[in-house]
Amino acid sequence: MTIEMTIIEMARAARAATRELARCPSELKNQVLLAIAAAVESEAKRIKSGNARDLAYARDRGLSDAMIDRLAITDATIHSMAQGLREVAGLSDPVGTADETTLRPNGLEVSRVRIPLGVIGIIYESRPNVTIDAAGLCLKSGNAAILRGGSEALHSNQALAAIIQQALANAGLPEGAVQVVPVRDRAAVNILLEQEEYVDLIIPRGGEGLIRFVVAHSKIPVLKHYKGVCHVYVDADADLDMAVEIGFNAKVQRPGVCNAMETLLVHADVASEFLPAMADRFSAAGVEMRGCERTLEILPEITPAKEADWPAEFLDLIVAIKVVDDMHQAGDHIAAYSSNHTEAIVTNHYGRARQFVQEIDSSVVLVNASTRFNDGGQLGLGAEMGISTSKLHAFGPMGLKELTTTKFVVFGDGQVRE
Amino acid sequence: MTIEMTIIEMARAARAATRELARCPSELKNQVLLAIAAAVESEAKRIKSGNARDLAYARDRGLSDAMIDRLAITDATIHSMAQGLREVAGLSDPVGTADETTLRPNGLEVSRVRIPLGVIGIIYESRPNVTIDAAGLCLKSGNAAILRGGSEALHSNQALAAIIQQALANAGLPEGAVQVVPVRDRAAVNILLEQEEYVDLIIPRGGEGLIRFVVAHSKIPVLKHYKGVCHVYVDADADLDMAVEIGFNAKVQRPGVCNAMETLLVHADVASEFLPAMADRFSAAGVEMRGCERTLEILPEITPAKEADWPAEFLDLIVAIKVVDDMHQAGDHIAAYSSNHTEAIVTNHYGRARQFVQEIDSSVVLVNASTRFNDGGQLGLGAEMGISTSKLHAFGPMGLKELTTTKFVVFGDGQVRE
Repeated sequence: MTIEMTIIEMARAARAATRELARCPSELKNQVLLAIAAAVESEAKRIKSGNARDLAYARDRGLSDAMIDRLAITDATIHSMAQGLREVAGLSDPVGTADETTLRPNGLEVSRVRIPLGVIGIIYESRPNVTIDAAGLCLKSGNAAILRGGSEALHSNQALAAIIQQALANAGLPEGAVQVVPVRDRAAVNILLEQEEYVDLIIPRGGEGLIRFVVAHSKIPVLKHYKGVCHVYVDADADLDMAVEIGFNAKVQRPGVCNAMETLLVHADVASEFLPAMADRFSAAGVEMRGCERTLEILPEITPAKEADWPAEFLDLIVAIKVVDDMHQAGDHIAAYSSNHTEAIVTNHYGRARQFVQEIDSSVVLVNASTRFNDGGQLGLGAEMGISTSKLHAFGPMGLKELTTTKFVVFGDGQVRE
Repeated sequence: MTIEMTIIEMARAARAATRELARCPSELKNQVLLAIAAAVESEAKRIKSGNARDLAYARDRGLSDAMIDRLAITDATIHSMAQGLREVAGLSDPVGTADETTLRPNGLEVSRVRIPLGVIGIIYESRPNVTIDAAGLCLKSGNAAILRGGSEALHSNQALAAIIQQALANAGLPEGAVQVVPVRDRAAVNILLEQEEYVDLIIPRGGEGLIRFVVAHSKIPVLKHYKGVCHVYVDADADLDMAVEIGFNAKVQRPGVCNAMETLLVHADVASEFLPAMADRFSAAGVEMRGCERTLEILPEITPAKEADWPAEFLDLIVAIKVVDDMHQAGDHIAAYSSNHTEAIVTNHYGRARQFVQEIDSSVVLVNASTRFNDGGQLGLGAEMGISTSKLHAFGPMGLKELTTTKFVVFGDGQVRE
């Protein structure tokens, strides 16, 4: 069978599975999730043996240690995949719920009932655990999933797919409910992105290159974020000890992730007191600081910032620092350079706290808290499929609810339009 | 200035206006809406004089009477535009509201606050009243609007735009808040559809040709419906008098709209009693009936249905009729031919009513009520920007809330990630 036929048949099978999935009760979906969790643990050997083939292939091709590290399935990975599935099984199911029901003057009873989106295509890079995480979230929200992992993780993903398929079959659910693309060829991605007749949503997870490729080629709506250039603004009325803790946490606690701070904006009135204290903490943690001219007057030992540092997502122990005259200037800087991902203010000024959260156009805006809290688990969504920085459908972390939509259900007694 | 520069400058001006619009209080937005309403009435003469130029141009070009009719601005049109604006001013403003606020275990207070989408481009055909209706809904929801009406309505739309611009200026709001594309050339549409850097959403309103063109060329997310092939299923346990009233209303009350019924599905057990009564009503109203073979056994005088009738959106006094063995077969027919727009069941059977609303994958699913109720006003949204049959972001009629999204606002006391 050609790659094109393979993908089209997968897309059709997924679409065909949606009717059954949409009416599948939570109880059965949870049973399947728990069965997959148990099988991931009991068949760890089989998973690792598939993973070993991928690792050998990756070493042969000279992949970097970092990539091989991401690819490896350890006991910890096995445990975390199983644990993740059990957590998703424990979340409440959004499908079939309605926020409110209204009674129209003519007696019609109108509600907006949550339903699955239908078929979701997920395109991701090396980490094979995404196969399990994404399958779990799609299944729980009643969506059929077509999973396309990194080509270097093919055998790991196939082993995981076999476990999922077995659990679906045991539960009497269609195998089209969760499918893993079985070919390495990248043409498979292009073909998948053209199946707008069968696929409702594409979620790419990976580096900016992958995401731009998907957006450029997809005929299907895409939920994505390109990057997280997150800012912390230290206001004139900040508690400066708190500001140091938040700045440190936002930059250092896990620098390689999208909700880490990349640029620190400091009000001129507090810069000479705040920056030396902040710089001590950063230096001790090995953070490279790149400052604007006014920052350099206070911290002459650090690197001068270049224009390219302001829009940069360092994903590393590097921070850009800029002194601003007031919050308005901080807002202008954020409007110019942010990726609408996460911004925080540190202040004890009531009016400016309110103004900041009103005016900053990002998916998560925080007062007196670290940018690192932009995360589905931390914000109470229970689980996360990714973070969207585009405003349509979902803005910010996407949980189970963001994998659903609503339809109007109307109960009447023979009403007609006048 | 070239067309390309004109459109790009409009898109930039719209983007620049979004910051001010997002924080504009409801009171001021309502004042502007009421000022536009007053000016539409007081400057009716100027609007009609622009419209007269368009009508003369349309007659010169030999446009159909139906098109000229849609293009004409009458006293009734003036009144309805002004009235529509006053109704939108009276609706509650979704911006700044939050459905619920949760307190996380670490003390973070998390809410999802409604915000405008940003810049909305609306591309529509002849009716110039859309200029006012769309401008009103965008303004009320805090979005900047770029309006591109039918080329034949250019002078009407320009006259309306001048009124809107004056009201914005009087209120001190940026003129980029509502703009009307000032050129006839269709290239303007192509250029607008490429401004993904500045425009957040495109809403096309018009025939299937326009919508397919927009979807094919847009780099920006599009909310649309192609067509409404709506079904009414008369169940074995239907109240047949009610079924006749609903069938008649769904087809005849306004046949040219997307929520009119196009196909009637009838359970075999009641077909011989129901169809003659239904056919009498349809015949008296001049409805052409096209039946399947089993329908023809009962109504031998009507036209045989062809395969092309099942997916057809007649938008006229024509109905396709099919006899089915049971609700499952009705569901299969709907799954194969519906446009996910509106489907209704007539039944007094509890279980089948529940099953129908659960299983039918359409934006509005009704029990014992006419399909004509798929309408923002009728369902309680207050106003309507159009009906979406794609599931992302909005599914069904779109009111003010569907022109917004949410961002997470988080208030803390110095919390950092462990």
